Amino acid sequence: MHAPPLARRLNGLQSSAIRDLLTITARADIISLAGGLPDPDLIPRDRIRAAADAALVDPSSVQYTETSGWAGLRDVLAVRESKRLGRAIAASEIVVTHGSQQALSLLAQVLLDPGALVIVEDPAYTGALQVFRTAEAQIEAVPLDDDGMSVDALSALLESGVRPTVVHTVSNFHNPGSVSLSTQRRVRLAELADRYGFWVIEDDPYGEIWFHNAPPLPVAAHSDRVIRLSSASKILAPALRTGWLQAPEHVCRAVELIKQGVDLCGSALTQRIAATLLADDDWLESHLGDVRSAYRERSETLSRAVQKEFGDAVASTDVDGGMFCWLDFRDGTDTETLLAAALDEGVAFVPGSAFAVGNDYKNAMRLCFTTSEGSVLEEAVARLACAHGARLRS
Amino acid sequence: MHAPPLARRLNGLQSSAIRDLLTITARADIISLAGGLPDPDLIPRDRIRAAADAALVDPSSVQYTETSGWAGLRDVLAVRESKRLGRAIAASEIVVTHGSQQALSLLAQVLLDPGALVIVEDPAYTGALQVFRTAEAQIEAVPLDDDGMSVDALSALLESGVRPTVVHTVSNFHNPGSVSLSTQRRVRLAELADRYGFWVIEDDPYGEIWFHNAPPLPVAAHSDRVIRLSSASKILAPALRTGWLQAPEHVCRAVELIKQGVDLCGSALTQRIAATLLADDDWLESHLGDVRSAYRERSETLSRAVQKEFGDAVASTDVDGGMFCWLDFRDGTDTETLLAAALDEGVAFVPGSAFAVGNDYKNAMRLCFTTSEGSVLEEAVARLACAHGARLRS
Repeated sequence: MHAPPLARRLNGLQSSAIRDLLTITARADIISLAGGLPDPDLIPRDRIRAAADAALVDPSSVQYTETSGWAGLRDVLAVRESKRLGRAIAASEIVVTHGSQQALSLLAQVLLDPGALVIVEDPAYTGALQVFRTAEAQIEAVPLDDDGMSVDALSALLESGVRPTVVHTVSNFHNPGSVSLSTQRRVRLAELADRYGFWVIEDDPYGEIWFHNAPPLPVAAHSDRVIRLSSASKILAPALRTGWLQAPEHVCRAVELIKQGVDLCGSALTQRIAATLLADDDWLESHLGDVRSAYRERSETLSRAVQKEFGDAVASTDVDGGMFCWLDFRDGTDTETLLAAALDEGVAFVPGSAFAVGNDYKNAMRLCFTTSEGSVLEEAVARLACAHGARLRS
Repeated sequence: MHAPPLARRLNGLQSSAIRDLLTITARADIISLAGGLPDPDLIPRDRIRAAADAALVDPSSVQYTETSGWAGLRDVLAVRESKRLGRAIAASEIVVTHGSQQALSLLAQVLLDPGALVIVEDPAYTGALQVFRTAEAQIEAVPLDDDGMSVDALSALLESGVRPTVVHTVSNFHNPGSVSLSTQRRVRLAELADRYGFWVIEDDPYGEIWFHNAPPLPVAAHSDRVIRLSSASKILAPALRTGWLQAPEHVCRAVELIKQGVDLCGSALTQRIAATLLADDDWLESHLGDVRSAYRERSETLSRAVQKEFGDAVASTDVDGGMFCWLDFRDGTDTETLLAAALDEGVAFVPGSAFAVGNDYKNAMRLCFTTSEGSVLEEAVARLACAHGARLRS
């Protein structure tokens, strides 16, 4: 007899093109701008070591902890979220998750029945698409422009009778689109959530990584229909696996209930480390200053190199923060085809198609500038130009 | 407008009675035998600190890691699983999970469509019940006796035409029943899986905590229809959040695919710590020796105290390993009613009903002996006897 079959939901589910690409591009001779990782040299390992040593004095640092997250960390997060939102957030309105990706997947279990409608941005964060597809949700997209999600397009959908359960947005320094949602649109999106009774999932892992000005108040400041996700992965360390969601209490309790079955609880140890670092305001501000200035410099170098090599053949978003630059080839270059030539030249990127929902984004690509020094970024773009030139000549 | 509703699957889902009870029994004046925690004093914090310090020399210890688990840890686990199963297991047949609870929930997503039939033991591990209920599986139970799951009862169900997708068993030192599956039944269960084409999930967090003899070969040694789960939580530290599953490669790849969306990956840091400790055979054997002898002594003290206080009024399983003792009151004591009186006397336990699937187990209870010294266990049982006596008199 053959092996028993696997569940239906695996049909058509695809491995993340990006994670697969990361495997291919781990080769030492390839400069990868395909990743989405923070620079390991900017991760404060000495502080993590000191915090771990201090935490390990206490036996409860190695024991099971609360399903909703260690209370000490939730207290720290409540203070930070209160400042960010400009209103008092209680620790009971926060659930600590295993990275903000787990917050997304728990929320999908809590909010979505199969067939429920989810509206995402186009292009979209692929990790969100994976979650919503696994939840067997119906997915529609509204376009992204320089001011973030087109709330006009969303409004038109709502007026035509479309009734989403969830609207997902990466409000600050979009992945992959790099843009941020304007203040006016934040207010309008919150109003629409109130009027039509849907949940907004405001996914915000990059908000602290601003280059010139801190982002405006989150969408969550304007409505209690907004569930805000954030993470220590990009500002402290992915290996802490510490994300969190801020939501009305009844949503937090439902998430906690699902999380009991999903993994019982997070790590008491890494949550203590995160709490220590996030509570040290002076150190954190200085650390974030270092991260912001390093990434700003790299993003500027990358943009200059792209402008120099491609000129008007490419439109790129202004990068004001985050980790990514989004390029759109105006000369009709198919970036999936270009990828093969680029790998031959020793440079990797993610083709726009990986993020596509409604449009195909076949002329677009995402470049990550965080893990390469300026000279490496310049070399990467030069290689990309070679690959592009070779494609044009062939 | 009211808040938008939550998903259908939350209807009827209940919070774990045990986790709720743990909150109540955190009071300092209550001796809790209700938990399921390892003794924090037996968790090797110094070794964890040293392993963390060593790991943090490497920048990749704080970065994202492979979705299926850090390769260095999977290599260590492959060696251990190969020894345990008596055949060569490749690292590609292992997925590291966020505790073995996450292995259960990922497997439910991979193996179960809504309405699929899952057969569990009665009484059952409540964490498994939560997962299978969240998956909207249909759940049937077969009884547990002194030799573990009644494979005769399972066989009768199969012969009558019942076709499960999954059969879940805690093969060693059952939670809550304390019994182990006999060698003969392991072989028969594997044969039935082969004949009828179902998956066995062999959930084995306690197998290393044997008091007199190591358990027989796992069910997984006898069929490739068996997915074996294990964990470092009970032998090293829950806060490492390191569990794993061993399964045929196509199942591992499906689990990995689902895990991408669920949380991207585990912690590179805690997985390195676990790998260091699990690879140090001499130290680990000595550490396990300490854990085994401490828990054996406590379980013997508990059994003697129960025998002394209750005599023939209570039947208890022989405890040969693990963390739990299962008592059955022959005098008709309702343990849910007894719990209130017991809390008044300052002792907590989990009533059998928390683990019930088919039977009600209203005269049974689970006692955990791992976190209390002998004298505390004796006091706990004396308090339980007071509560029991008061109930009888009232």
